[in-house]
Amino acid sequence: MIKPHTLSGFMENLPAPQMQMERMMDILRRTYSLYGFTPLDTPVIEDAQILLAKGGGETEKQIYRFTKGDSDLALRFDLTVPLAKYVALHYGELSFPFRRYQIGKVYRGERAQRGRFREFYQADIDIIGDGQLDILNEAEIPSIIYKTFTDMGLKRFQIQVNNRKILTGFYELLGLGQLSGDVMRIVDKLDKIGAEKVRASLIDELAVSPQAADEILRFIAIRGSNQEVLAALESYRGKNQTFDQGLEELSVVVKYLAAFGVPEEAFAVNLTIARGLDYYTGTVYETFLLDHPEIGSICSGGRYDNLAEYYTNKKLPGVGISIGLTRLFYVLGEQKYLNPALNTSPADVLILPMTEDLSAAIGFATALRNTGIRAQIYGEQRKFKAKMTYANKLGVPFVVILGEDELQNGVYAVKNMSTGEQTSLPQAEAVALIAATVQAGQNIPVILDT
Amino acid sequence: MIKPHTLSGFMENLPAPQMQMERMMDILRRTYSLYGFTPLDTPVIEDAQILLAKGGGETEKQIYRFTKGDSDLALRFDLTVPLAKYVALHYGELSFPFRRYQIGKVYRGERAQRGRFREFYQADIDIIGDGQLDILNEAEIPSIIYKTFTDMGLKRFQIQVNNRKILTGFYELLGLGQLSGDVMRIVDKLDKIGAEKVRASLIDELAVSPQAADEILRFIAIRGSNQEVLAALESYRGKNQTFDQGLEELSVVVKYLAAFGVPEEAFAVNLTIARGLDYYTGTVYETFLLDHPEIGSICSGGRYDNLAEYYTNKKLPGVGISIGLTRLFYVLGEQKYLNPALNTSPADVLILPMTEDLSAAIGFATALRNTGIRAQIYGEQRKFKAKMTYANKLGVPFVVILGEDELQNGVYAVKNMSTGEQTSLPQAEAVALIAATVQAGQNIPVILDT
Repeated sequence: MIKPHTLSGFMENLPAPQMQMERMMDILRRTYSLYGFTPLDTPVIEDAQILLAKGGGETEKQIYRFTKGDSDLALRFDLTVPLAKYVALHYGELSFPFRRYQIGKVYRGERAQRGRFREFYQADIDIIGDGQLDILNEAEIPSIIYKTFTDMGLKRFQIQVNNRKILTGFYELLGLGQLSGDVMRIVDKLDKIGAEKVRASLIDELAVSPQAADEILRFIAIRGSNQEVLAALESYRGKNQTFDQGLEELSVVVKYLAAFGVPEEAFAVNLTIARGLDYYTGTVYETFLLDHPEIGSICSGGRYDNLAEYYTNKKLPGVGISIGLTRLFYVLGEQKYLNPALNTSPADVLILPMTEDLSAAIGFATALRNTGIRAQIYGEQRKFKAKMTYANKLGVPFVVILGEDELQNGVYAVKNMSTGEQTSLPQAEAVALIAATVQAGQNIPVILDT
Repeated sequence: MIKPHTLSGFMENLPAPQMQMERMMDILRRTYSLYGFTPLDTPVIEDAQILLAKGGGETEKQIYRFTKGDSDLALRFDLTVPLAKYVALHYGELSFPFRRYQIGKVYRGERAQRGRFREFYQADIDIIGDGQLDILNEAEIPSIIYKTFTDMGLKRFQIQVNNRKILTGFYELLGLGQLSGDVMRIVDKLDKIGAEKVRASLIDELAVSPQAADEILRFIAIRGSNQEVLAALESYRGKNQTFDQGLEELSVVVKYLAAFGVPEEAFAVNLTIARGLDYYTGTVYETFLLDHPEIGSICSGGRYDNLAEYYTNKKLPGVGISIGLTRLFYVLGEQKYLNPALNTSPADVLILPMTEDLSAAIGFATALRNTGIRAQIYGEQRKFKAKMTYANKLGVPFVVILGEDELQNGVYAVKNMSTGEQTSLPQAEAVALIAATVQAGQNIPVILDT
């Protein structure tokens, strides 16, 4: 006999939290679909050569790679590389812009530690253009994220946006075009190390002039409402083409985000956000819980120019965003954001037959199920008390008792488990009573954010 | 640059067929939930020792096994072993009977051939008891399968049931108790090799007496309606306890299946069905497409006595059934069962803005999405013809054109892409028109079985 265990770094939920996770996935699927994204599913295993085409860095170290027969295989470590392969491979059969969502598990053999997962879900959306892609898409992506989190019940979060062209153009203005990547890497530490140390690093490590360093600090200190930030940026206009284009794009994104119904407080221009330095080329996004900035971004992405450069000569610009779902779910649990009022029971009704023949219980369960109510028949020969204990442990909202009396009178004894109230009703009325409560329960959000 | 490719034996669908696959998964999730099963999700990677606890045979050869650091890891090859581990590991935190469904990918490094997959979805339901489990569950399981396939649109299929105790008891009666496993293995070939060769094999390979062989052939030749088969089995009653118990159970299952609303033609007692010889102990199931018996069973399972014997001393009897979803989907496609009338477009509406400012298009898209209609805005600066070509390629049911005229008159030009009809309507009426068609489309089954 082997002691049962689950590998560390692998999430395996008990039924109740798994139900919360499923609710989050349902919302993701529904919202992503409402915006015209098609669901994709690609293999978890790919040819290692495909996944490592870009190569280098942490990816190579963390990837799960193995051979089977003669094949050099690996588990996907994100959903972007498989998307790039998919689009390059099926290019001729797809219509562009190509909008896809994918919710799937990815694998990274990171050092195991609390809250870090080796197997985790990503929930990605991307819009891929063929040669070109309109700026509208860069505004729509964060509006989808706004809708997704809002539907889950999250309230106090903010999507922060920036535009890489503004940064690139600004550093070119200062004569730091070659250094812009390094500068952004240091600026990215602003929140952690403070302005003074950023200034010192710029001067000491990169030999930036004190004047330019001050200029950079002034720039990234620009704060205020989105309109105020855009107005402040206007003072740099006309000096660098890339900057001007970035400012144009950012203004359009801000304007359309409002048109998409995203309220002002839910998105903010933040000039310190840069994201992956060699990949993103336009709008970039990060998303923060306002009350838990220490968690870091819960949803990030941006605009890129060349999705599939390792697999095709076609220029395929795109914009996408990714939610690290497993980590988000874990964090929400830790921070007590998961709503205890959400019904996580596997059934809405537990039917307790008190007679030997179960046909009447079966008939009633079928009637409930046909109305969309989740019903379970408790068929075990146990004492009434044991049956009620089971109902309580499952957390079912309703128990329906079906004894000889009920059968003879053609009624169903419906017990509301939260109020304790019990009433005997004919079938149609019993179903209607339960249906009303079940329907009301569907509006209870999975996240409780007050 | 690397030539993009997907490993052979791994399904990777284009968007339209993937949409059909998603519809099948939606139905599985919904139906399984209606019967009170809780969704579970377990890791794809487990400790190899856990997965190979039972060991031996094809499993060892086909399993994807590899090391990462010091860990001996493997990919799950089914969802039953992970369930056994889960129940043993979390025993104290679960309520029994424990009903779970799981739809997930499993891995088997089989020889690659057409229609065989190395990565494939299984969609499993199981009910696990603690020490005991009522016979009701053995009737409910096939009723769920009936509902699932019916909701998908499948009509001409049959769930065939048998009871292992009947077989075991019958062979004991003939003094072949020790040989029953071998006898069943030969009898299982009846459809393939015919009665004569089965008889010869029994006599030659197992040294069964000619009288006993004839008795076996007579037994497995029992045919007719379920009541007729049960009546024929009555003639053996009273001679063997195991047989009698099996007959009792089968009679109850047949009775309750009818109570669950499964029509007589959709399930049949078939005495030749045995299933995995050392695992199942009671009711067993196989499911066949009536017009394609050559495909074999598309959904199988049964009652077992000891789910987790390799991980715990607890006796955990259960009953379960599994759909090999990827293979089923492949077969349905091959046999032209997938319904071309199902809308597989990523959106219900494509909005074509003809003005530079896209705010009105965004507002209309938002109104549609708030009503549950999947909408996409085509924001690219292309000629009208190119936009319509895109709409046609996507297969969207509706296009809405928003030009200067429409904006000025406060109307939306709604074009029904299947009829070609175009009408200009105010927003509320446009949304209502589209919503009606979308709603009607949701009743179109994914499988067309005439």
